[in-house]
Amino acid sequence: MVNIAVLGYGTVGSGVVEVIRTNQKLIDQRVGEELRIKYVLDLKEFPGDPVNEVLTHDFEQVVGDEDVKIVVEVMGGIEPAYTFVKRCLEAGKSVATSNKALVAKHGAELLKIAKEKNINFLFEASVGGGIPILRPLHSSLTGDEIEEITGILNGTTNYMMTKMFYEGADYDEVLKEAQENGYAERNPEADVEGHDACRKIAILSSIISGHQVDFEDIYCEGITKITTEDMKYAKAMGMTIKLLASCKREGDKLNAIVCPCLLRGEHPLFSVNGVFNSVFVHGNMLGDAMFYGSGAGKLPTASAVVGDIVEEAKNLDRNLGVMWSADKLVLEDKNDVSRRFFVRVEGSVDEWQEQIINAFGMVQFVKAEGVDGEFGFVTEKMPEGVYEEKAKECPAVIKAMIRVED
Amino acid sequence: MVNIAVLGYGTVGSGVVEVIRTNQKLIDQRVGEELRIKYVLDLKEFPGDPVNEVLTHDFEQVVGDEDVKIVVEVMGGIEPAYTFVKRCLEAGKSVATSNKALVAKHGAELLKIAKEKNINFLFEASVGGGIPILRPLHSSLTGDEIEEITGILNGTTNYMMTKMFYEGADYDEVLKEAQENGYAERNPEADVEGHDACRKIAILSSIISGHQVDFEDIYCEGITKITTEDMKYAKAMGMTIKLLASCKREGDKLNAIVCPCLLRGEHPLFSVNGVFNSVFVHGNMLGDAMFYGSGAGKLPTASAVVGDIVEEAKNLDRNLGVMWSADKLVLEDKNDVSRRFFVRVEGSVDEWQEQIINAFGMVQFVKAEGVDGEFGFVTEKMPEGVYEEKAKECPAVIKAMIRVED
Repeated sequence: MVNIAVLGYGTVGSGVVEVIRTNQKLIDQRVGEELRIKYVLDLKEFPGDPVNEVLTHDFEQVVGDEDVKIVVEVMGGIEPAYTFVKRCLEAGKSVATSNKALVAKHGAELLKIAKEKNINFLFEASVGGGIPILRPLHSSLTGDEIEEITGILNGTTNYMMTKMFYEGADYDEVLKEAQENGYAERNPEADVEGHDACRKIAILSSIISGHQVDFEDIYCEGITKITTEDMKYAKAMGMTIKLLASCKREGDKLNAIVCPCLLRGEHPLFSVNGVFNSVFVHGNMLGDAMFYGSGAGKLPTASAVVGDIVEEAKNLDRNLGVMWSADKLVLEDKNDVSRRFFVRVEGSVDEWQEQIINAFGMVQFVKAEGVDGEFGFVTEKMPEGVYEEKAKECPAVIKAMIRVED
Repeated sequence: MVNIAVLGYGTVGSGVVEVIRTNQKLIDQRVGEELRIKYVLDLKEFPGDPVNEVLTHDFEQVVGDEDVKIVVEVMGGIEPAYTFVKRCLEAGKSVATSNKALVAKHGAELLKIAKEKNINFLFEASVGGGIPILRPLHSSLTGDEIEEITGILNGTTNYMMTKMFYEGADYDEVLKEAQENGYAERNPEADVEGHDACRKIAILSSIISGHQVDFEDIYCEGITKITTEDMKYAKAMGMTIKLLASCKREGDKLNAIVCPCLLRGEHPLFSVNGVFNSVFVHGNMLGDAMFYGSGAGKLPTASAVVGDIVEEAKNLDRNLGVMWSADKLVLEDKNDVSRRFFVRVEGSVDEWQEQIINAFGMVQFVKAEGVDGEFGFVTEKMPEGVYEEKAKECPAVIKAMIRVED
């Protein structure tokens, strides 16, 4: 029998209990022995819930119980999660967590403790919810150098972008609807400003580089400025707009960014719609691959947590070697990263064509149906710093700029 | 140092050598020590190729060398691959293979030997080429009961279906083009009749059930009867046609089939185009997920093989527990599996409406632009056996039937 404890009986925690209870027999077969929930830790009471049989309010009881081999941290937030997880690892208990804030900030340190103690710290659910992505990167794509990871890593904003693209709805309307449907928080900042996606791409960047990538170092731009007009231009170009979180290798440098991007119709991420998440990976040998699924939600997230629990239960005294060092990786400056830029300009093509070509060189002009008094153009590939300079020089009035993902 | 031997220096074998040589440093880091190709076994000579330094024509040299811990079988076919793999496993060497015919036929037995010897027999590349799917099923989706796996598992036929759908090209034309581009063999039977996809879904069915699923027991229908008219009907319904290989759980039974299916526009597999493969998975907790990538090709396939080699090198004296028993699984009879059916009928709706409704109950009639002298209809969900009976009773002339994937 393998005893586990679940810290936090909120959405994910109750999901973890439900997944284990529902699939108990199958899970026990896979582990090779019975997986038993010995404790659920929560400050609250749950009158009438069978969880009461194992409910405790005392973390010391959990951390002090030598029978508990695996601890599941699904409380969220940095504290007390960090202190609890660290103490559990130091006490020789493997930990599984869905807590992206914790992993992004303290992953390197917690992995190091797990390695020293010959146990495991796993966090599949912290990126892409139910989608298996961290373990495939660690255990399957090991013949490859990963040259790119680009993800739609936030379901709320993808739901909103999808509605804006397919239904022509405007930003405020779609946000309100998302809030009413429970897809967006009353305070949607973490989603719409890209902070959630940013922590996830920081974790992915750390995993593929083996070094600490701080989310604060990643340029992060949300979707709040995206308009129905932008979507009309996207349609006119056979593209769509998605909030992408990406990490790419160029030479010996990594660059990472979170921002809304124009995405061509043939890109595998183009048709990832609604609340679904997806992670596109390019390996130098594998070529393109993509992993798709539910990026959030009680049971999909819990499914990923339970996958980690099973892996830990099968490897109780054996570190699986997931590591990133605390040495910080210096990302390539955003201004040095080359891409194409889509730019919206006031006035008419006839009026501005010459000045724009003078400033930006070869561009493609775009007109979108139903968008009057302005036009758009797409530049050739150039470093963002060069684009910024040209944009300052150009006398035309630039209404908006959106990066193009090629 | 971990010494390996590669059996077969064809497309995949030379790819394996290339992947290891290109990413040697990274791979060594992941393994934790140097991975060295000690032998490449092939009957042929390769004048001028650096492989000559390690080339051997003598299998006994490989199997008799105690230094060789991992053997890569990429010869293809059943013999001598089966004999070689079995002898290597019995000699205590882990084996990685891309050979779907071998795995579909002898997987259960070879896994059993690997378990007895406390080594590993891995075959990620045998299904979906470079796409990580077997290890995610085994190591990530372990909190779930897998209720469905539906895959586009053959790149040749998917390339053909894509061309027929988007370009209106007809079957013979597209096959010829695929042959000219090297996407289809001169004898295309294994692809277009579905035999290749059938072996792959047999392997997936065995993995998720833990029992032997014989490919001979799976109903297998290829794409040779699909016409441009069928594609026009698909378009009229907002659908497409794909060669799907699927395995589904209904109650305590599994059913499996390979056949062309109509697929709705919202299905994640809808936009998997060209030579790409994709595997859709539904777990009872996870919900929908999808894995996408290159299903064939030298380097993507070799990438998956090398992923297996690394996993084996990290687990030299430890069986990873991948198992299916030799006990054969009895699949649900095709005639008992319920689905909707799309049917093409000679004549006009007016003429046949009454008889069709009498025979099939509620149906939806479909007309496709540019297809004259006939019409189509889609039935409600019913067991295939019931459909067959009704089709016999119905006096209308049925020109074609295509199953609908819901």
